[in-house]
Amino acid sequence: MFLGKVIGTVVASQKEATLDGLKFLVVRRLTIDGDDTNGYVVAADAVGAGIDEVVMVATGSSARQTRLTDKRPCDAVIMAIVNTLEVDGEEKYRKE
Amino acid sequence: MFLGKVIGTVVASQKEATLDGLKFLVVRRLTIDGDDTNGYVVAADAVGAGIDEVVMVATGSSARQTRLTDKRPCDAVIMAIVNTLEVDGEEKYRKE
Amino acid sequence: MFLGKVIGTVVASQKEATLDGLKFLVVRRLTIDGDDTNGYVVAADAVGAGIDEVVMVATGSSARQTRLTDKRPCDAVIMAIVNTLEVDGEEKYRKE
Amino acid sequence: MFLGKVIGTVVASQKEATLDGLKFLVVRRLTIDGDDTNGYVVAADAVGAGIDEVVMVATGSSARQTRLTDKRPCDAVIMAIVNTLEVDGEEKYRKE
Amino acid sequence: MFLGKVIGTVVASQKEATLDGLKFLVVRRLTIDGDDTNGYVVAADAVGAGIDEVVMVATGSSARQTRLTDKRPCDAVIMAIVNTLEVDGEEKYRKE
Repeated sequence: MFLGKVIGTVVASQKEATLDGLKFLVVRRLTIDGDDTNGYVVAADAVGAGIDEVVMVATGSSARQTRLTDKRPCDAVIMAIVNTLEVDGEEKYRKE
Repeated sequence: MFLGKVIGTVVASQKEATLDGLKFLVVRRLTIDGDDTNGYVVAADAVGAGIDEVVMVATGSSARQTRLTDKRPCDAVIMAIVNTLEVDGEEKYRKE
Repeated sequence: MFLGKVIGTVVASQKEATLDGLKFLVVRRLTIDGDDTNGYVVAADAVGAGIDEVVMVATGSSARQTRLTDKRPCDAVIMAIVNTLEVDGEEKYRKE
Repeated sequence: MFLGKVIGTVVASQKEATLDGLKFLVVRRLTIDGDDTNGYVVAADAVGAGIDEVVMVATGSSARQTRLTDKRPCDAVIMAIVNTLEVDGEEKYRKE
Repeated sequence: MFLGKVIGTVVASQKEATLDGLKFLVVRRLTIDGDDTNGYVVAADAVGAGIDEVVMVATGSSARQTRLTDKRPCDAVIMAIVNTLEVDGEEKYRKE
């Protein structure tokens, strides 16, 4: 998984029928210290994540191992909202 | 998924038999702000995308989770046409 | 899929038994305009591609969705020979 | 697999229900000589790895081939703790 | 697949039980001309490869399509030992 911050939304009305009801969020990749990068992914939201929250994203076939994404053409899913990130003994992020 | 813009087509008459009927489009990768990059992928079209449209592309085994691509040697599929992309509270793209 | 040019061959006599009979070709990755890069992949050939031909390569589990590669430890397959590549309204490549 | 060093933890209370009980560790990618890089992954721990240990990480669908991660939206798993790494005839790392 | 040279070994006693008996080799990635890079992967050995041999590595779910790696948390396998590599009409490598 990688760490990301939810920074936006994608709306798409014309899509594979099985994707109806899925919410697509833009997730900016974060560095190991929780800082922004230019990388991103559009991920389906399986946990009710909100803008500016730090999340974990699973990709590939693992992104389909949720009830919402099972058997759907979806290769990235937000599967957890991060409470705390601790690296090298320092707290780099804490959800408020 | 990543965001891309449809910029071309690939025609291939000599191919795996199961790929007959699939349309292959060249998709340029876009940045998080909807700008062009040099990256691209050739993707099967599952949604009737047209040249210059902004789309979402799913890759890997997830690309085979559509009726058109099921069990085919295809690792990228256009599974949605984007209506709007909003990032950091700004609308970066709106389909006309 | 990505676009590549067939530029070489790999011969390997000591290998997984299930790979007997597969032909392994070296494929140079091409840019979106059909130009050379330093990237490459060694791919199984499912379509009878020849040296210098421009081809499409599928990777990952999708590379096993052909009769020749099914259930084999093979993560890249040439699944189509390109006739024409058109990008931004220009023909970038045409098979002679 | 790649080699990494366990450098932190991620706590996430709001997540896919199937992930309950999994421990998520931050793993810094190491070079071929066992040196630090800026790359990282958040991986589920299948072997009881501790902070500062050098481990092997498997990604993709292979990350689900453990009892703890089976059928879960998890794309990276620590599947071994490294005792020794020998490269070019030199011992680059030995677990104390 | 990519081309690599076997340059080392990883010993790990604490690991997923299903991995017992697998040999893990460090494989340096080679360029299209057979030259060294800094990239590497740790791969299970399915063919009895030795130090300094040039090999082909399959990754992802394809790495599990051998008897030794089936259903194991292993995402890279050496599935062939290269005899000859020919690129652009030149022999770049021949196993001695």
